[in-house]
Amino acid sequence: MNVSDIQIFLQQFFDQVELVGDGGVDITGPARIEQASEGEVTFVANEKYSKYIDSTKASLLIVGTQLPVGQYSNRHTFLKVKDPYTAFVFILEKYAAPRKIASPGIAPTAVVGRNVRIGSNVSVGEYAVIGDGCSIGDDCLIAAHCVLMDGVSIGDHCILFPHAVCYDSVRLGNRVTLHTGAVIGADGFGFAPQREGSYIKIPQMGIVEIGDDVEIGANTTVDRATMGSTVVEHGAKIDNLVQIGHNCRIGSDTVIASQTGVSGSVVIGSRCMIGGQVGMAGHLALADRTRVAAKAGITKTFSKQGQVLRGYPAQDMKDQLRQEALIRNLDRMKARLDALEAELEAMKKRSNPAFTA
Amino acid sequence: MNVSDIQIFLQQFFDQVELVGDGGVDITGPARIEQASEGEVTFVANEKYSKYIDSTKASLLIVGTQLPVGQYSNRHTFLKVKDPYTAFVFILEKYAAPRKIASPGIAPTAVVGRNVRIGSNVSVGEYAVIGDGCSIGDDCLIAAHCVLMDGVSIGDHCILFPHAVCYDSVRLGNRVTLHTGAVIGADGFGFAPQREGSYIKIPQMGIVEIGDDVEIGANTTVDRATMGSTVVEHGAKIDNLVQIGHNCRIGSDTVIASQTGVSGSVVIGSRCMIGGQVGMAGHLALADRTRVAAKAGITKTFSKQGQVLRGYPAQDMKDQLRQEALIRNLDRMKARLDALEAELEAMKKRSNPAFTA
Amino acid sequence: MNVSDIQIFLQQFFDQVELVGDGGVDITGPARIEQASEGEVTFVANEKYSKYIDSTKASLLIVGTQLPVGQYSNRHTFLKVKDPYTAFVFILEKYAAPRKIASPGIAPTAVVGRNVRIGSNVSVGEYAVIGDGCSIGDDCLIAAHCVLMDGVSIGDHCILFPHAVCYDSVRLGNRVTLHTGAVIGADGFGFAPQREGSYIKIPQMGIVEIGDDVEIGANTTVDRATMGSTVVEHGAKIDNLVQIGHNCRIGSDTVIASQTGVSGSVVIGSRCMIGGQVGMAGHLALADRTRVAAKAGITKTFSKQGQVLRGYPAQDMKDQLRQEALIRNLDRMKARLDALEAELEAMKKRSNPAFTA
Repeated sequence: MNVSDIQIFLQQFFDQVELVGDGGVDITGPARIEQASEGEVTFVANEKYSKYIDSTKASLLIVGTQLPVGQYSNRHTFLKVKDPYTAFVFILEKYAAPRKIASPGIAPTAVVGRNVRIGSNVSVGEYAVIGDGCSIGDDCLIAAHCVLMDGVSIGDHCILFPHAVCYDSVRLGNRVTLHTGAVIGADGFGFAPQREGSYIKIPQMGIVEIGDDVEIGANTTVDRATMGSTVVEHGAKIDNLVQIGHNCRIGSDTVIASQTGVSGSVVIGSRCMIGGQVGMAGHLALADRTRVAAKAGITKTFSKQGQVLRGYPAQDMKDQLRQEALIRNLDRMKARLDALEAELEAMKKRSNPAFTA
Repeated sequence: MNVSDIQIFLQQFFDQVELVGDGGVDITGPARIEQASEGEVTFVANEKYSKYIDSTKASLLIVGTQLPVGQYSNRHTFLKVKDPYTAFVFILEKYAAPRKIASPGIAPTAVVGRNVRIGSNVSVGEYAVIGDGCSIGDDCLIAAHCVLMDGVSIGDHCILFPHAVCYDSVRLGNRVTLHTGAVIGADGFGFAPQREGSYIKIPQMGIVEIGDDVEIGANTTVDRATMGSTVVEHGAKIDNLVQIGHNCRIGSDTVIASQTGVSGSVVIGSRCMIGGQVGMAGHLALADRTRVAAKAGITKTFSKQGQVLRGYPAQDMKDQLRQEALIRNLDRMKARLDALEAELEAMKKRSNPAFTA
Repeated sequence: MNVSDIQIFLQQFFDQVELVGDGGVDITGPARIEQASEGEVTFVANEKYSKYIDSTKASLLIVGTQLPVGQYSNRHTFLKVKDPYTAFVFILEKYAAPRKIASPGIAPTAVVGRNVRIGSNVSVGEYAVIGDGCSIGDDCLIAAHCVLMDGVSIGDHCILFPHAVCYDSVRLGNRVTLHTGAVIGADGFGFAPQREGSYIKIPQMGIVEIGDDVEIGANTTVDRATMGSTVVEHGAKIDNLVQIGHNCRIGSDTVIASQTGVSGSVVIGSRCMIGGQVGMAGHLALADRTRVAAKAGITKTFSKQGQVLRGYPAQDMKDQLRQEALIRNLDRMKARLDALEAELEAMKKRSNPAFTA
């Protein structure tokens, strides 16, 4: 592909793709701006990286429409678009080597149960086990060693990496990706305490429903509901090693970073951004577009949309940062207290010398 | 099943099961009180849910013996028992659809090693691998893709969900459940530092012993001991993504929520309740019935029974909450300090105007 | 083996191994000093354990060259070496029962792709799946159910426990150990936000490179780079359930305890020691030999070597501990403020009684 090919490719996604420089230069692949070699394409979406424009060896730079590039145009070629970051993502995809998740067709070692419906153009890898009554849509890739217990239903264009597991009756929408070790639909953590101190297990009879365009990271666990459904709405992205408890609802286009834990029956709104290692107590809710800083511990409902939370117990970011600053200055507060006490003592002595000794 | 059938069923577990209403109503299944439809059974174990009694569409409500239900008896039927929550758990179980963990018998694709003892009525799923010298008790369900390395011993009535793994010589008691991705007996994290900065691995020669009636969540790891045993005593319940380090002892009927990490050689007493994302430093102990709030970091032994701990470093809940309140009021303390200083300055000026300027 | 055999064995590793007592005593195996029985060998590397020398039933004690043992020499036999802890590790290894990771050879049920290079003396366990174009060095043990996607390259003497997974193009050095459920090379968590609130996936085109002598714990995830490599340098030891984000570099001989999370593009130096449940924000760096206390949250770069960090936001350990002490004494500060205000009020009244009332 040369620069002009990339221009034509990007015109599928953007109204305007302006070429500044030589469209005939061959482009071998994408790279980071600091590391790019001659012949490679890179991008500048953030002012922080503008400083590299001068020195980068990349032959093609994808930049914003506003960026003045005239001074560099004898050295590099530019394509100017509205959203250079997204444009570069499309270019990455274009150059990505095809990755084999599973060979075409049903591997001879895959075990497929009774009454299974498998769509067209589906790959099922070696040793995958598909339980009775499962349904798999078109164009799915189920890699080696995946297990679908009975009655699992999967939409079209899903990708299950090796060793992903769905317990019985889990439902995935279209274009869902499960990474290796993701466990969808294991039993919620529910036990009824008995008088003498032991517990009896509460049967976890519900299911998990995963919406369209959801991606779930490696070794993440999403527990089934006790009754009803645990729901991850369309477009949500969940990182590795996250725990989603039983009966939770994760809103559409919400992003949850690694190692965060969501206790049972929590309702998270749409378009939230949850940092890593966050914890949430059970039965609370977060409004749409809530953002939570890493490591926060949410102990109550926050129902105002778009709030930014931090700390444990989590509170509004501004309040939390003010308190953190006060804590960093506690030794100064203590010194001021010491000084005040000394001064007051001195004043008392001055005003009434007879009291001393 | 109709209401009378349920009454008779519950009489197995409770001395008194009082019927208020029509025993002939057919009950189709259990549901949450807010979501129940006509024909379903629900329960009220907690006053918070009494408000739904009036509006629920459920036909049968399981309630406490003390609850006055007369005013609703023309609308719903009631069964009154001492512990409606536990009664409802039994009803859940009664209605639960049978779940196939593994088909009866040893799957033809399962690999069973030499000198393996397998009890009666055992199911071993597709592609499960049972190492040499393993012993599996009666009525066990070992799902697809489970791996038992050599010398693993499993009691009766155990359930291993797909992809559960036991390293060599691990011992499980009776009625143990391992969820998918649980790893029992991986090497403890032990390395001897060498002078030049590298490490040599300390062989982890011990085992893991899991007592009766233990349930271990998805992707949880319980490491083997360096020497001796890591022990999880009977009745303990461990949630998903928990880490139990080498040589720990987890007491009987202790409950540990998701993503908690227990460092090596920690001893946790019986009937403790440990919240999620708690961390414990190595070699410490918690007395029986200790309760630990989520996200706490335990840095020392707490030997008084029944304490409630919170915070990092964890301390008695009351002390911790008092400190959290003080922190929330730090800006007020600072304002008071400012005022005091100003006032003192003013007093000094008044008492000795000559000092100013 | 008797004591003299052990002496000769240790002389491979230490210049001086001094025998005090009877070299002919038979030694059956290693044990902890408090739990050892007659015939067993134990060690004292730490003064804390000297108190057990008198009472231990062990027949042989490995101790430091400086330890005076004369008074006990009629009861036990001693071998004196420079580093008794490391000496004991070698003894542990010597007595360790051989552990079968996989039977010799390629299991008949293993699936090996096209153009795979397999070295000499390699074991590949039941149902392992080796993708096209993989390369496996000599003396490797690949256990049952491991999956190597296409193009994975593994050095010599590696051990992959059951269910370890490497995504495509991952590279492992020599003597690398992956425990069960470790996932190397899953996609980094990268999504480009779109105007209307949804995300598009950023193709993760990079790889993971693991250096020599690295051990990676059960259910730990190391994500592949977006472009370039995520790198774990030689000698690093990573515990269970750790998350290493895309494009990170973990320095040589660095140790990371369980449940720690490292966000994308973090660079950790050599010989660092990172406690459990630590979190690190993206794009920061830690200098060589940095030590981080458990549960810390690192929010910025620390470029001074050898620093000890603690708390959230993490800071120098000494500053953090001073602040924690101040927080524990906040109620006292508040009491002092109360007293000062009262006293000042009283002074005002005394100095100007007319103002009161």
